[in-house]
Amino acid sequence: MVRHPTITFLSDYGLEGFFVGMCHGVMIRGCPDARVIDVTHDIPRHDIQTGALALRDALPYLPDGVHLAVVDPGVGGARRAVALRTADGQFLVGPDNGLLRPGAATLGGIVEAFDVSDSPSRLLPVSSTFHGRDVFAPVAACLADGRDPATISETIEVEGLVALDLPRPSLRDGIVHATVLSVDRFGNVVLDAGASDLDQSGVRIGDHLRVETDAVTTSMRLTKTFGEVGLGEVLAFIDAQHHLSLAVNQGSAAGRLDLAPGSSLRIGAPGPTQM
Amino acid sequence: MVRHPTITFLSDYGLEGFFVGMCHGVMIRGCPDARVIDVTHDIPRHDIQTGALALRDALPYLPDGVHLAVVDPGVGGARRAVALRTADGQFLVGPDNGLLRPGAATLGGIVEAFDVSDSPSRLLPVSSTFHGRDVFAPVAACLADGRDPATISETIEVEGLVALDLPRPSLRDGIVHATVLSVDRFGNVVLDAGASDLDQSGVRIGDHLRVETDAVTTSMRLTKTFGEVGLGEVLAFIDAQHHLSLAVNQGSAAGRLDLAPGSSLRIGAPGPTQM
Amino acid sequence: MVRHPTITFLSDYGLEGFFVGMCHGVMIRGCPDARVIDVTHDIPRHDIQTGALALRDALPYLPDGVHLAVVDPGVGGARRAVALRTADGQFLVGPDNGLLRPGAATLGGIVEAFDVSDSPSRLLPVSSTFHGRDVFAPVAACLADGRDPATISETIEVEGLVALDLPRPSLRDGIVHATVLSVDRFGNVVLDAGASDLDQSGVRIGDHLRVETDAVTTSMRLTKTFGEVGLGEVLAFIDAQHHLSLAVNQGSAAGRLDLAPGSSLRIGAPGPTQM
Repeated sequence: MVRHPTITFLSDYGLEGFFVGMCHGVMIRGCPDARVIDVTHDIPRHDIQTGALALRDALPYLPDGVHLAVVDPGVGGARRAVALRTADGQFLVGPDNGLLRPGAATLGGIVEAFDVSDSPSRLLPVSSTFHGRDVFAPVAACLADGRDPATISETIEVEGLVALDLPRPSLRDGIVHATVLSVDRFGNVVLDAGASDLDQSGVRIGDHLRVETDAVTTSMRLTKTFGEVGLGEVLAFIDAQHHLSLAVNQGSAAGRLDLAPGSSLRIGAPGPTQM
Repeated sequence: MVRHPTITFLSDYGLEGFFVGMCHGVMIRGCPDARVIDVTHDIPRHDIQTGALALRDALPYLPDGVHLAVVDPGVGGARRAVALRTADGQFLVGPDNGLLRPGAATLGGIVEAFDVSDSPSRLLPVSSTFHGRDVFAPVAACLADGRDPATISETIEVEGLVALDLPRPSLRDGIVHATVLSVDRFGNVVLDAGASDLDQSGVRIGDHLRVETDAVTTSMRLTKTFGEVGLGEVLAFIDAQHHLSLAVNQGSAAGRLDLAPGSSLRIGAPGPTQM
Repeated sequence: MVRHPTITFLSDYGLEGFFVGMCHGVMIRGCPDARVIDVTHDIPRHDIQTGALALRDALPYLPDGVHLAVVDPGVGGARRAVALRTADGQFLVGPDNGLLRPGAATLGGIVEAFDVSDSPSRLLPVSSTFHGRDVFAPVAACLADGRDPATISETIEVEGLVALDLPRPSLRDGIVHATVLSVDRFGNVVLDAGASDLDQSGVRIGDHLRVETDAVTTSMRLTKTFGEVGLGEVLAFIDAQHHLSLAVNQGSAAGRLDLAPGSSLRIGAPGPTQM
């Protein structure tokens, strides 16, 4: 067993209240020399997809170790609590609701899966609403402390793990069909499409795009920075996580284009093409 | 002296501004190998009771060490700054306004108390508004660093410490008389009553409860999870800190029942009983 | 090279989203034994002056080490990324837009400056919008890890660094001419003037002040604590960072006096003096 003294922690608990603080406490009790890195606790409540994508996008920048993620609308119900060992020897810990799958893929895929729902390392009595503290945090601490997962859980079939059906962009006749993944607090709109999808449709940095939503059709430029367009103008850019994103310089693209998570768009070169 | 290299930190400073960050800085300057765990900084401003209950409820999940808590409406006035040694050898540090007492009780009670108001470890000049940084944080760091409290403070009488008058539920004729302790951001209502109070009134998980506020009388089920009632329905449950709580599945119990901290309720089995 | 295993981190990234978390991850990847202290991430977006003053005011309370600060409206443009070695052997890392200069002055001034824009330690490909993660965090980690800055950057002229034009109070005929630096979430108003400016105008703690804004003229007392005036009354006090500040006991001074960052005021002893 290699020691994993770093635990990263992502959740939808928010920083209001002491939910995150108690989980930190439990992890340090379980593994006194662990370092805990908060990735974010600002995932919209119960939004598994947003949590899964945030975890996947953050992992390349996080140190190796145990990655605890809790977005868990099914807490207290029948869903399993799991620990996943990845091809590169790291662990993901959280509910078996698809949250961990995209992240596991970026770490080389899952080589072994464990059901930790009844782990001897959980805190008794287990509450019905706060498994982050009572199940997931103590299991993450045990793994960070170098315990063999077989001693604290049961091996399960990787094939039986719950999958997550993520939106994927498609390219038809030079038009990218994309979906809104999320909208940030500035009204910037993040799409499931990325730079390679645009490449395939023949669009380059500096080109104009035609963006068609269910409500409006707009033309905008694909720029590298916001400052390349005027104040209040809409633009497209590749964000720091490599997603195609729409923004308004000093304004809200979500407001302007009436977009929300799940909205669909069609994106292509401007011109007579029928989208 | 046993070393206490862990400091937990709870306050009403909020995460806006740099108040919490400066206190962290002071603690690490004072005890470079300390680990500081933020419990929460989201206690409502100057709300000693909420801070005291959060500290008490969190302590069982926190590692042993020094517990710094600052909710301090009397800062700059005559109230004392104190450090309390508990029966199990831990320290609580904060203002002598009752904030630390319920937490101390969960750690076995106070065996020794120290006035640190004029501690030589405080930062000079002491500001009149930010004793968290200038008095409490440096004292917590000294104790975490293993200093003998007698060298940085004066022993005082435990009996002279300010007490806190917490609401307590009462049981009369099978009816639990309870008080609202807090309302969270989802509108969930936390009561001072717990599972044992319900036991005494003969209510079991799955049973219906009659809940009477000053405004309305409602029937609801005592469930284990929110999902056991329909969307928009009210329910009662035992929360992860063992408090009886009221919620509306995907809604606000505080709004529905017109409850706020301090509101009183009467809870019993449904039926002809006069509450 | 002395090791600097502590990194302090200030930004305008907010705690929403995972920007801060990814920077933490990158720092720990780059310097696994670094301790990262969050000073604040709540600087108003792109507000270099507020960030610079917060960093300057916090530094005396932070442990020695590397101080990472990112308020970077020019990200992706021509502004340089820099590391500054101060007279006392610490480092400041951030954009060359004036943000680091007031802080550097409190650490004895800058003795050596480095352009890290093209540092070999940056993460490739560098995004055009998130240099905190891709440039500044890895450079801060390298310096914390004890690397010689000459091996990861180019020396540049200290004289060529961008300066910051901070508001400064002036004293004319016994009247302090001051400017609002910031307004906190309670409506407390922080001025560029401090205790020494008042001393020069002959005002002492306990005295009354005449405060003239562009809209109103008010009299208030210079107190040590809020509680020295009645509920809803306005007062002046020296805040914990030594700034003259205006407040309303349990209310908003910014609202009452119609003040915002940048507003100018004239402050003096009450009486017939013409301000």
